[in-house]
Amino acid sequence: MTLSVAVAGASGYAGGELLRILADHPDFEIRTVTAHNNAGHPLAAHQPHLRSLAHLTLSESTPETLAGHDVVFLALPHGRSGEVAAQLAADTLVVDAGADHRLEDPADWAAFYGGEYYGSWAYGVPELIVGPDGAKQRANLAGAKRIAAPGCNASAVSLSLAPGIHAGVIEEEDIVSVLAVGPSGAGKSLKTMYLASEILGSANPYAVGGTHRHIPEIQQNLRKAGATEPTLSFTPVLVPMSRGILATSTARVKPGVTAAQVQEVWEAAYADEPFVHVLPAGSVPRTADVLGSNSVLVGVALDQAAGRVVTVLAIDNLYKGTAGAAIQSANLALGLAETAGLSVNGVAP
Amino acid sequence: MTLSVAVAGASGYAGGELLRILADHPDFEIRTVTAHNNAGHPLAAHQPHLRSLAHLTLSESTPETLAGHDVVFLALPHGRSGEVAAQLAADTLVVDAGADHRLEDPADWAAFYGGEYYGSWAYGVPELIVGPDGAKQRANLAGAKRIAAPGCNASAVSLSLAPGIHAGVIEEEDIVSVLAVGPSGAGKSLKTMYLASEILGSANPYAVGGTHRHIPEIQQNLRKAGATEPTLSFTPVLVPMSRGILATSTARVKPGVTAAQVQEVWEAAYADEPFVHVLPAGSVPRTADVLGSNSVLVGVALDQAAGRVVTVLAIDNLYKGTAGAAIQSANLALGLAETAGLSVNGVAP
Amino acid sequence: MTLSVAVAGASGYAGGELLRILADHPDFEIRTVTAHNNAGHPLAAHQPHLRSLAHLTLSESTPETLAGHDVVFLALPHGRSGEVAAQLAADTLVVDAGADHRLEDPADWAAFYGGEYYGSWAYGVPELIVGPDGAKQRANLAGAKRIAAPGCNASAVSLSLAPGIHAGVIEEEDIVSVLAVGPSGAGKSLKTMYLASEILGSANPYAVGGTHRHIPEIQQNLRKAGATEPTLSFTPVLVPMSRGILATSTARVKPGVTAAQVQEVWEAAYADEPFVHVLPAGSVPRTADVLGSNSVLVGVALDQAAGRVVTVLAIDNLYKGTAGAAIQSANLALGLAETAGLSVNGVAP
Amino acid sequence: MTLSVAVAGASGYAGGELLRILADHPDFEIRTVTAHNNAGHPLAAHQPHLRSLAHLTLSESTPETLAGHDVVFLALPHGRSGEVAAQLAADTLVVDAGADHRLEDPADWAAFYGGEYYGSWAYGVPELIVGPDGAKQRANLAGAKRIAAPGCNASAVSLSLAPGIHAGVIEEEDIVSVLAVGPSGAGKSLKTMYLASEILGSANPYAVGGTHRHIPEIQQNLRKAGATEPTLSFTPVLVPMSRGILATSTARVKPGVTAAQVQEVWEAAYADEPFVHVLPAGSVPRTADVLGSNSVLVGVALDQAAGRVVTVLAIDNLYKGTAGAAIQSANLALGLAETAGLSVNGVAP
Repeated sequence: MTLSVAVAGASGYAGGELLRILADHPDFEIRTVTAHNNAGHPLAAHQPHLRSLAHLTLSESTPETLAGHDVVFLALPHGRSGEVAAQLAADTLVVDAGADHRLEDPADWAAFYGGEYYGSWAYGVPELIVGPDGAKQRANLAGAKRIAAPGCNASAVSLSLAPGIHAGVIEEEDIVSVLAVGPSGAGKSLKTMYLASEILGSANPYAVGGTHRHIPEIQQNLRKAGATEPTLSFTPVLVPMSRGILATSTARVKPGVTAAQVQEVWEAAYADEPFVHVLPAGSVPRTADVLGSNSVLVGVALDQAAGRVVTVLAIDNLYKGTAGAAIQSANLALGLAETAGLSVNGVAP
Repeated sequence: MTLSVAVAGASGYAGGELLRILADHPDFEIRTVTAHNNAGHPLAAHQPHLRSLAHLTLSESTPETLAGHDVVFLALPHGRSGEVAAQLAADTLVVDAGADHRLEDPADWAAFYGGEYYGSWAYGVPELIVGPDGAKQRANLAGAKRIAAPGCNASAVSLSLAPGIHAGVIEEEDIVSVLAVGPSGAGKSLKTMYLASEILGSANPYAVGGTHRHIPEIQQNLRKAGATEPTLSFTPVLVPMSRGILATSTARVKPGVTAAQVQEVWEAAYADEPFVHVLPAGSVPRTADVLGSNSVLVGVALDQAAGRVVTVLAIDNLYKGTAGAAIQSANLALGLAETAGLSVNGVAP
Repeated sequence: MTLSVAVAGASGYAGGELLRILADHPDFEIRTVTAHNNAGHPLAAHQPHLRSLAHLTLSESTPETLAGHDVVFLALPHGRSGEVAAQLAADTLVVDAGADHRLEDPADWAAFYGGEYYGSWAYGVPELIVGPDGAKQRANLAGAKRIAAPGCNASAVSLSLAPGIHAGVIEEEDIVSVLAVGPSGAGKSLKTMYLASEILGSANPYAVGGTHRHIPEIQQNLRKAGATEPTLSFTPVLVPMSRGILATSTARVKPGVTAAQVQEVWEAAYADEPFVHVLPAGSVPRTADVLGSNSVLVGVALDQAAGRVVTVLAIDNLYKGTAGAAIQSANLALGLAETAGLSVNGVAP
Repeated sequence: MTLSVAVAGASGYAGGELLRILADHPDFEIRTVTAHNNAGHPLAAHQPHLRSLAHLTLSESTPETLAGHDVVFLALPHGRSGEVAAQLAADTLVVDAGADHRLEDPADWAAFYGGEYYGSWAYGVPELIVGPDGAKQRANLAGAKRIAAPGCNASAVSLSLAPGIHAGVIEEEDIVSVLAVGPSGAGKSLKTMYLASEILGSANPYAVGGTHRHIPEIQQNLRKAGATEPTLSFTPVLVPMSRGILATSTARVKPGVTAAQVQEVWEAAYADEPFVHVLPAGSVPRTADVLGSNSVLVGVALDQAAGRVVTVLAIDNLYKGTAGAAIQSANLALGLAETAGLSVNGVAP
């Protein structure tokens, strides 16, 4: 059975990546692509790399144009999805690649985003440990009609640490994460800081000191994995690569835990996962290894002298970090094969 | 007075940067450039950007060719400087840009480098706090005849944290540093991991889990700044920029310390420094801002929720991280103006 | 029916790209991967991005290990394929991604490569015009048992110009091509010029003045498209992108030819092609648009004042430039769908 | 004697480079920096790399703020300099880094720029051959009060070809130039095409087919070097490096000219130049070799088979291409040492 799909925000980077994956998905047919400022343009004017969709034209992002599809993917600026989604039929699967429905606590929303709060949806990271028995989030996605795809950075850090939190081998307090991130996560935002001349040849930190919007999302995830009141120092650094997140996260190891146990905890947590892979002890991933794929690679080490577990996780912010997570979650919601249409192999070099 | 200079290891990146700075230094005259494999070649074959030195030819790196100069800069692979330096006249100023004479504890040398230990020299980071009264390392460089230029990463992390350690506003235990670094720090080493195809478009961690050789050097520096037994989780990440280090370092804040106090501590520590600048609260540096200069820019923030001070420091690994530190230290040793021949302005964009 | 495949040279970039495409190809099963220096290693040590093939181990590249497969892809250094291929069964389809069997004239081989000449095979660019009637090369690939995949640069320039040569709207003399190329075309060759520090932030020309080995291959192709004695100034420039070729080629326009005619000639030549697309007048492609795909995008313009047609062509050197061409040609040789297993959409941004 | 200087447009890239060079110039004192939208801001907010100028504040770009200086440098969007300059005192040296006063023919201005034409000024490329006797443009700059700094691309191509035109060894018709250029030449223009995500990992051509505004400027220069009606196919390609131009230019060689003659012609033309260097036969430059310097490196080759001379020229678009040319010309106009304050050594790697 082929399901009809609409993608709103199709002229941006997240929208483009959704379309790129959907174009080769065996169960979906892209019927409608919409945009705001770019409505009326040929899709090819904004996504020249999507040759198989070069015949499509962008229509306006309205509830009317989005109505009548089996699945609607929203790739809109934050604060926009809530309003649009509220007008879509309840039995339509709506997957929001934006931030509007990720946070469960209105206070978090108010503190980090602001504006109207539209409530939270099923969170689109199937591999996340969410129960004391090690249950994964995928169980909550089966049959869902409203799904919030994760923040790419939040996804990276949460998947890095959830195994250790769940197994009780690391402390939940005093976690430190520093991320090297590509600028495509910011979309086509026309700000000086995203100009090529500003980013080429430079490493540029931002949102330093606890202000990044993905912090409450990570804390929410870690609480589901077993933490009570996790604290996190989080610093993203823009580096000159278009895609990718390399998240280096560290947490204090609990007394007596060995390096072998650490390796085993992470391996066990993701042993059966099709997309999350723990590398052999001593190995760490590069972002190039996952570029253009839904794969997540994690390396983990115990630094005895520092008393900390160090995880290094690589993820493609646009694929597994956004569009792939959305489609993987939609697969689960619709009862399709979870891996349908999703690539495990990266494009390297 | 013009002092005669020799640079050993002149065909590499550190050697090239030494020569680039020395070429415009008002007090030095480059008389000899030496190399090992490349001896006999014109310098221009290996340093085509050094137009003003295009007439020089590389001679062999031997005690004989290096003898008879007022100053000798060594930019040799680790393990080589000790032997060469031992054969140079005691009254010649020898500045080693390599690692051979940085570590004061033979056990550290044995654990992280190995091979013969040649003893430690005056450490070439003038701005480092090394006394309980806030005394700086520059006092130890005046008149010195043997100087060890610092490790670029060690310099970055030590300058980031020394003010907080000295002032007692951060804990010395459980420091975490993650660095985005350019590949030029590795020199012209012909390994697959340094090929452009491996590094372009990717973030590549290495030496994860407490194995990097700069860790004992940082600990040694922090002890001089006032720490007793500092512990440090240290992770470097290669990113696609030729030069630069962006060091994100965090440490637990001591109880009751405010953001204003934190800012004040760092500003006070570097208030009179010609090359180290603390940015206004709320600002963070980019590596592009210091590229091609001897400047170090530091931003500092207190993340109350995480209970951590976060410092972000930008430095050019080849300039202030290596060659500039060597020359600044030589200036001090020789009684020249500390800033002679050194640029404070970066090359951006 | 599933065909068994072996890939020789599987630890390199071209070998990796062959495997990446083959892994998702509906008709092939990768059975053997071989290497020379790296024999015995797990494939994952050299191709960590190929998660779906992480179970494979590299065996030695010998006629014995390669024997017994339906298809053998060779991704070996030039001068090596000829010898290996000579020992493979005549009814095995052998596709050489190297240079050994591209040139039809032994004098060209001697002048630009040297060493033993093993003869030419069917040339693996199906879209190339090779007959006065506009016949394409794909006809020569059906049923072939020995195929020479093209040089990536040669493919780019030949596809750029063949339509104009065939239609007689441009002169065959005095063609000029300048290419911006990524370093992955050089493989994992450990030379200083391919180090990241040499290539990041710089544009580096090489093989200037008519010495590049793809020149006779381009001339051979243009002769098949209708030229008699084509002359070509060809300059490649390494730029800091891991993949991609942006070929800017110009040729003198024949008298009286209009811009509309030029556009029409190129559009007509590739109207039915699944992988080669002529952009609308006024548009030009970027290499990002074809990265990770088998697509070729061409923009064409007539510069009346200069009296020249300008073509700008974007191609992924590892995909359509090498591995994709090999697999597309194999599809044709084996009677499979020409497009089987090949992506038309690029990975951008 | 110290001369007072104002820089208009000081918050942009060209303005920043002017300030960076002027800051270390022995004869100038930067007294005023102005901007349009950014007036009132600290300079450091827009030029954080200029530590030695961090005390300056941007004032409004008006004739009043610019009045009363010995030298005024204008780094304004095209179409703005003419109006401002008309209101500055006649005996003030005004150097325009913009395009407003480069073109001598109002028809060229109308065809490629449009809007009011303000007339041409002395052209700021001292090394350009402008007379049948080989006279250089520097003679026309001595004592000048109004100077037009060149277009960076125009400068690159003109310096590449003028020796061959002047010596009569190449044809003036049918020149082809293809340039790899960094995005900083576009300034801080907020357009999607200049976003880092669009440029990282990609080669992006623009202004294809004879529309680039530097074409008439190049033709004007080549006429001064001896051409009558030069024709030029000119294609710029944006590549992922912040700075630099690598210009590959080719022209048909005149009959009977040898490779040795070609090398000799170029060497003779620039033998005494402090900033333009012809590399030995067989060598070509990289943009990294001139980054951050006023140097121009040229390699030249004769491709006998193609019948073309190929020149490859590297220049830093912001330094020698813009700000360095402006200051070098100002030095000449004011009777200072031509090389005062200008670097010959590049920043590499």
